[in-house]
Amino acid sequence: MTTQWVYSFGAKESNARPDTQGPVKNLLGGKGANLAEMASLGLPVPPGFTITTEVCTAFYKNAEQYPAELRAQVDAALKKIENAVGVKFGDAKNPLLLSVRSGARVSMPGMMDTVLNLGLNDETVVGLATSSGDERFAWDSYRRFVQMYGDVVLGVSHHDFEDILDQQKRDDNVFNDTDLSADAWKNVVAEYKALVKRDTGADFPMNPVDQLWGAVGAVFKSWMTARAVSYRAIHDIPEDWGTAVNVQAMVFGNMGDDCATGVAFTRDPSTGENYFYGEYLINAQGEDVVAGIRTPQSLTILGREKEGSNLPSMEETMPGVFKQLDDVRQTLEKHYRDMQDIEFTVQSGTLYMLQTRTGKRTSAAALKIAVDMVGEGLITKEEALLRLEPQALDQLLHPTLDPAAHKTILTRGLPASPGAASGIVVFSADDAEAMAKDGKKVILCRRETSPEDIHGMHAAAGILTTRGGMTSHAAVVARGMGRACVAGAGALQIDYETATMRVGDRVVKAGDVITIDGGAGEVMLGAVPTVQPELSGDFATVMQWADDVRRMGVRANAETPLDAKTARGFGAEGIGLCRTEHMFFDPTRIQHVREMIFANNAPARRDALAKLLPAQRGDFAELFEIMRGLPVTIRLLDPPLHEFLPQSDADIAEFARIANIGADQVRMRLRELHETNPMLGHRGCRLGMTYPEIYEMQARAIFEAAIKVDVTPEIMIPLIATHRELAVLKKLVDETAVAVFAETGKTVSYTVGTMIELPRAALTADEIAPDAAFFSFGTNDLTQTTLGLSRDDSALFMNDYLRQGVFARDPFATLDIDGVGQLVRIAVEKGRKVRPDIKLGICGEHGGDPASIAFCESVGLHYVSCSPYRVPIARLAAAQATIRENAGKKPDAVKRAA
Amino acid sequence: MTTQWVYSFGAKESNARPDTQGPVKNLLGGKGANLAEMASLGLPVPPGFTITTEVCTAFYKNAEQYPAELRAQVDAALKKIENAVGVKFGDAKNPLLLSVRSGARVSMPGMMDTVLNLGLNDETVVGLATSSGDERFAWDSYRRFVQMYGDVVLGVSHHDFEDILDQQKRDDNVFNDTDLSADAWKNVVAEYKALVKRDTGADFPMNPVDQLWGAVGAVFKSWMTARAVSYRAIHDIPEDWGTAVNVQAMVFGNMGDDCATGVAFTRDPSTGENYFYGEYLINAQGEDVVAGIRTPQSLTILGREKEGSNLPSMEETMPGVFKQLDDVRQTLEKHYRDMQDIEFTVQSGTLYMLQTRTGKRTSAAALKIAVDMVGEGLITKEEALLRLEPQALDQLLHPTLDPAAHKTILTRGLPASPGAASGIVVFSADDAEAMAKDGKKVILCRRETSPEDIHGMHAAAGILTTRGGMTSHAAVVARGMGRACVAGAGALQIDYETATMRVGDRVVKAGDVITIDGGAGEVMLGAVPTVQPELSGDFATVMQWADDVRRMGVRANAETPLDAKTARGFGAEGIGLCRTEHMFFDPTRIQHVREMIFANNAPARRDALAKLLPAQRGDFAELFEIMRGLPVTIRLLDPPLHEFLPQSDADIAEFARIANIGADQVRMRLRELHETNPMLGHRGCRLGMTYPEIYEMQARAIFEAAIKVDVTPEIMIPLIATHRELAVLKKLVDETAVAVFAETGKTVSYTVGTMIELPRAALTADEIAPDAAFFSFGTNDLTQTTLGLSRDDSALFMNDYLRQGVFARDPFATLDIDGVGQLVRIAVEKGRKVRPDIKLGICGEHGGDPASIAFCESVGLHYVSCSPYRVPIARLAAAQATIRENAGKKPDAVKRAA
Repeated sequence: MTTQWVYSFGAKESNARPDTQGPVKNLLGGKGANLAEMASLGLPVPPGFTITTEVCTAFYKNAEQYPAELRAQVDAALKKIENAVGVKFGDAKNPLLLSVRSGARVSMPGMMDTVLNLGLNDETVVGLATSSGDERFAWDSYRRFVQMYGDVVLGVSHHDFEDILDQQKRDDNVFNDTDLSADAWKNVVAEYKALVKRDTGADFPMNPVDQLWGAVGAVFKSWMTARAVSYRAIHDIPEDWGTAVNVQAMVFGNMGDDCATGVAFTRDPSTGENYFYGEYLINAQGEDVVAGIRTPQSLTILGREKEGSNLPSMEETMPGVFKQLDDVRQTLEKHYRDMQDIEFTVQSGTLYMLQTRTGKRTSAAALKIAVDMVGEGLITKEEALLRLEPQALDQLLHPTLDPAAHKTILTRGLPASPGAASGIVVFSADDAEAMAKDGKKVILCRRETSPEDIHGMHAAAGILTTRGGMTSHAAVVARGMGRACVAGAGALQIDYETATMRVGDRVVKAGDVITIDGGAGEVMLGAVPTVQPELSGDFATVMQWADDVRRMGVRANAETPLDAKTARGFGAEGIGLCRTEHMFFDPTRIQHVREMIFANNAPARRDALAKLLPAQRGDFAELFEIMRGLPVTIRLLDPPLHEFLPQSDADIAEFARIANIGADQVRMRLRELHETNPMLGHRGCRLGMTYPEIYEMQARAIFEAAIKVDVTPEIMIPLIATHRELAVLKKLVDETAVAVFAETGKTVSYTVGTMIELPRAALTADEIAPDAAFFSFGTNDLTQTTLGLSRDDSALFMNDYLRQGVFARDPFATLDIDGVGQLVRIAVEKGRKVRPDIKLGICGEHGGDPASIAFCESVGLHYVSCSPYRVPIARLAAAQATIRENAGKKPDAVKRAA
Repeated sequence: MTTQWVYSFGAKESNARPDTQGPVKNLLGGKGANLAEMASLGLPVPPGFTITTEVCTAFYKNAEQYPAELRAQVDAALKKIENAVGVKFGDAKNPLLLSVRSGARVSMPGMMDTVLNLGLNDETVVGLATSSGDERFAWDSYRRFVQMYGDVVLGVSHHDFEDILDQQKRDDNVFNDTDLSADAWKNVVAEYKALVKRDTGADFPMNPVDQLWGAVGAVFKSWMTARAVSYRAIHDIPEDWGTAVNVQAMVFGNMGDDCATGVAFTRDPSTGENYFYGEYLINAQGEDVVAGIRTPQSLTILGREKEGSNLPSMEETMPGVFKQLDDVRQTLEKHYRDMQDIEFTVQSGTLYMLQTRTGKRTSAAALKIAVDMVGEGLITKEEALLRLEPQALDQLLHPTLDPAAHKTILTRGLPASPGAASGIVVFSADDAEAMAKDGKKVILCRRETSPEDIHGMHAAAGILTTRGGMTSHAAVVARGMGRACVAGAGALQIDYETATMRVGDRVVKAGDVITIDGGAGEVMLGAVPTVQPELSGDFATVMQWADDVRRMGVRANAETPLDAKTARGFGAEGIGLCRTEHMFFDPTRIQHVREMIFANNAPARRDALAKLLPAQRGDFAELFEIMRGLPVTIRLLDPPLHEFLPQSDADIAEFARIANIGADQVRMRLRELHETNPMLGHRGCRLGMTYPEIYEMQARAIFEAAIKVDVTPEIMIPLIATHRELAVLKKLVDETAVAVFAETGKTVSYTVGTMIELPRAALTADEIAPDAAFFSFGTNDLTQTTLGLSRDDSALFMNDYLRQGVFARDPFATLDIDGVGQLVRIAVEKGRKVRPDIKLGICGEHGGDPASIAFCESVGLHYVSCSPYRVPIARLAAAQATIRENAGKKPDAVKRAA
């Protein structure tokens, strides 16, 4: 059987859908499939045909030769167009003109886009002038064709064509292209052709069939341009997908006042409101709508009124055609069951549909459309959930820049924590706090932040750093607090001494006002107005649907009462990670922490810890109260002790004075505790192993607080590498529980488990699980160790790595499934093997990332835990993951747990 | 069938070997097995019996109850002793006395050792006085028994017994125990018994059978003392091994001048010389030989003459018994086929053998004994190889402390690089170099070392650091250079400003002389004499045998000509790791390296690199010449660039002057390049990805050098985490090769491969292997990342971790097989699956560690690579690994490759 390489559409006799195994899109490409789809719905599509993606694949498999049957099939398909339109390709009197467009499964930069007006030559242009009755139109069309074809097919520089055009306008002393006469265009065409001859050594092809094959070949060759190849490498698009080529009869919206062209959305893409939203221009081409020379007019009376425009709508000027178009809108929405972005042209009173595709929309619109469509019975709740982009919900939770506002961008960094904020530039946490107390909004600008800056970060409206990545301290804390943050703005140089920062020769001083957009990673000069979002009723509706569907629980990473309240407000079902060290930095406590560090022996350490105990107990009591009835996972002390020591000369002197020791002694201890690679140093459970009294105090504080509130503390031991560490420390916690229960005569149920955040822990999970009631995957550190990549230092080369396709996405933002994910999978399997009921969760930053959440669902984790502002995102993403996972599984195979 | 819980020995009718599945030692313990073995050889062993290790296990499984049949079996065995000796246990006239000893499979601290003279009481002591004709002897024996039993069985403090004895001597005004009379001993016994009554609330047991069961119970209970439990945890000894109990008839060497006692080695344990080496004392007990009150005499005339002693030898005083003993020596060596350490007693002219076990020996002796025994036909070459401790060869390659010398130990650190060295204390690399130029021997003392200290380390005789572990920079470089090194001496505080270091109140200044022993980790005040070793002919013989046997190749980690020559001299079969960065630190080159780092763009970087090219090419040419005919694996630049920048103010100023830029600019670049965790930072192939011109220059230098020498360069890309990195960089290397070959018209064969040193690389080895001709396991970094443990920072808590049994051995010294080994195994399997011929090696420090080498054999690596001074160790260890592996495999299953 001969392979069918060419599929016709729009010519009445040939609207059959191809008989293919995969989606039609795989064979015809996105554009071709939609054209065929519209044609099969009986919509007025200019007739055409699609050369399939399989031709592209065959072309490259066969040393850039087309399949033998292709030419005959194209000839036949062309014949069908001629028959449908009633004019002939290359006809000197009334020529058929074609458009040629590429069309892969997904739109892809680096691919040839479009050649219009193909079929014109020195002969047919005269025919077009006659048949259209407009010589200027015909020659303008011809010169456009020569320019497009010369550029994209023959590789002649676009600029050289523009130079010729500019010279013509200079000669004729006109400003707009539209002011050039037919003769001027004739002259331009002649010079264009001379340019092509000069540049390529060959005449511009006059034979329409040669033109067609030239354009088809250019599309296929553009599949292998460097840009397309590297785009595919980065986006994991297989080379053998190939591209299709769409050849279609030209229609013209610029042949008179019964002609028009326009673009439209089937609903308002900004608000989601269900009315026909679009623009049109009478006697114009598609590119005129975009170019902005003439003001496009609204399609509908309602649209015109909303915009306060007095230009007549299409509903008024062309009521018949409009009615037809509005019917098309209904048909398309019913068929595609989603909001569509369409292009159309009216030629001499006849409507033609040139394109339809799923319309892009704002987050608010996406939400409203999804909810409305469920209400209208168009889609199911599950479909509605899958339609929404979880990340986009962020826009709904934070202030955003007023899209209408003017902005002067100073520099860019990583979009580390969403939201926009304006404020006065300060360079220290203390300044931030002091100015905030005076009621001023500030942006805290630091090379990087450390736990000592927490109070300043809290006081600031936004945080800007010049170093560090998406999971740097600044980024993580800012997301946790819901502060806007731009991190790792590497071009910016901060000089603390002169209290200035600069990009090139632009200098910003302390006291100046800047604006940062943590969703876009932009830093702007001055105050750019922002708009406050509102959580609409649709938002609550969608969250409820998500909760009804999802299998995994969603918890929050939170330790402050504010964070915990925020998290519960956003629907968190518990705390998955309470980092106890943040509690140690409180100014009233840090002195005791430091005393503990300076203690020479265990009894002295115990004395210092005894002073911290009431405060820790109070922290936990408050947190448990807020999370009453829910599980709270508390991680025992994790960071290396040197993080708690004073660093600046002034702080050292002050501490030495209070502690009544020499500043030299403080410096010596600092030196002793200094680490080359603190990430891999004396931290996590290693502290508990060498200073068991610290963990003992923390466990005591937890139990003493928990016996007063209905809560299930889950005590988490960090940085376990070996089963013996967990065995030793679990015993310590259990013994402390026994002691507290004996003293108080009360008990609480609690569990002890561990972070899995080192490769060794994952690999030996079967040895660790017997002592662990739960595993919580600490994927931040697991990513750092598995990839040997410091999240604080990777910003310097991460862009290089993303650009070169080493990582498709920043592995600190989206879980590296092939590497880190493999360890998670190993740990899950080994852990479950020896302890089938082990509770499994994730508490790294990935717990709030939709792609990572899908992975968590696939390995069957019980919950994800993320920063409070990501809880809604995680709820939706978890729901999507369940729906997608169930699509490949029997329902109820896995049960929900929190 | 009734279990046999008790095995008799020495009583003629009962010398049958137990019929057991495992080695006899598992059932009877080490001591019991050897006693039974000697008895079965017909040697004169005092009769006795062993209660098996299974009783111990049963005891703990059954709530500390003995098996029901035990008592009857013990009674029967006791009867056999009585019959053999002809006296009865508890007989008032002529009592049988017993010794009771523990005996696990391996000797273990914390276990009950020995109770002697058991069976004495107020009645039998009188009988013993009569039967021995020596009342003083009888009462001395009795008081010894009460003291030993009171201490180890009843838990009465040893000191309280000593106090009573001291008081008695004070009362009688005598200095030595031996001067106390029979009556004095009677008095002591009375007071001892009163003490026991006071302390335990019960009378000292008078019934010999009660005494026996008390002692047996004490042995079993000592299996569970805290010290024994923690020793087992640390040494991975299973609890269910249990201990045996040995009960044996007492014999006395102190009943007159026809009595004697002694200890001996069947060969000289210091030199290995084949003569009977030992000491004896007439009319003495075993403990008298050890106590040193009387001077022990040599067994043989030869020994007496060697020692220049005029005390008569046993060969002269007791020729008959000596002849018998010398026969025993021959019998034991033939039977055990190894040098034995024996204990014997002569009672009234009759020889009794009390113990035999494999004798400890020096490395030199071990070597000589092994070679001699092969010559004597006692053992095979394979057995000889297995007898040798590879690590111990180190002693033969480096100077050692004169064992006779007095030493004042200042402090201890890690034994980081073997050898002993004395020298003048200096605190900077520059000082070390300057003084060495003046012909002085120096010890370089640093908190830690960095690549900038290399010249000073080279100039020093030894290196001492206060921070860092077994694989810290100092340790690795020192081992590579063969310099003595004590690392991580944490108690030592170095103050560079005052040029002093101190431990407590002991201060050492620059200019003082110290001695370090890098094999023992000791730091001593002053100059302690050292002795130079010689590599004897036996050494070469053993190395040849090892080479004949081993499957794996042995290469060296070396980059300097000196190291490479040393390595080849030690038998290295190529270079497994040439670290190119060391070549960058040369003072004549570092300036160009820094220029390269300060270059603002690729062309400027290329200019600076062009200046480095001739030097790099020269390095490689020299190295290839030394390694002619052998493979050389070259790792492209690995460390982060900031390591090359000046750090001190003076160096910064100097560099700024030469480079004609501001010191501020230098500091700014330093800040930009600063990393929080440099181990996980912008290094390894990440440099090649962002600055491809660096790797291009290095590849060019390699190819330009290689085309002139017969060598196979293996170009190794470090720190690969993803397959894409290797693909990109392999392409770069291949393109450079094509260019050099085209320019020169010559080609060389070369391969490109990668370090596997990140967990992700191991986990995705199947993706990486298609572009890698070889994998070299960089287990230093793989250990750091898998365990999340910085080798530079782990010293602070590693001792805690070893003590608590978290690690059996420092994972930077011996590969963590459960964790890191699992990743190696995964990588080997995945790599081989897609590329069966992939060459596999290891180049981390573990490549020179015998236990790790055994693991490498088990996963089938092709070679190990280690520092030059470890090459002989690796050759032996690899041979042992092959022999052991083949014991469990068909021969020739795997072939040797280099």
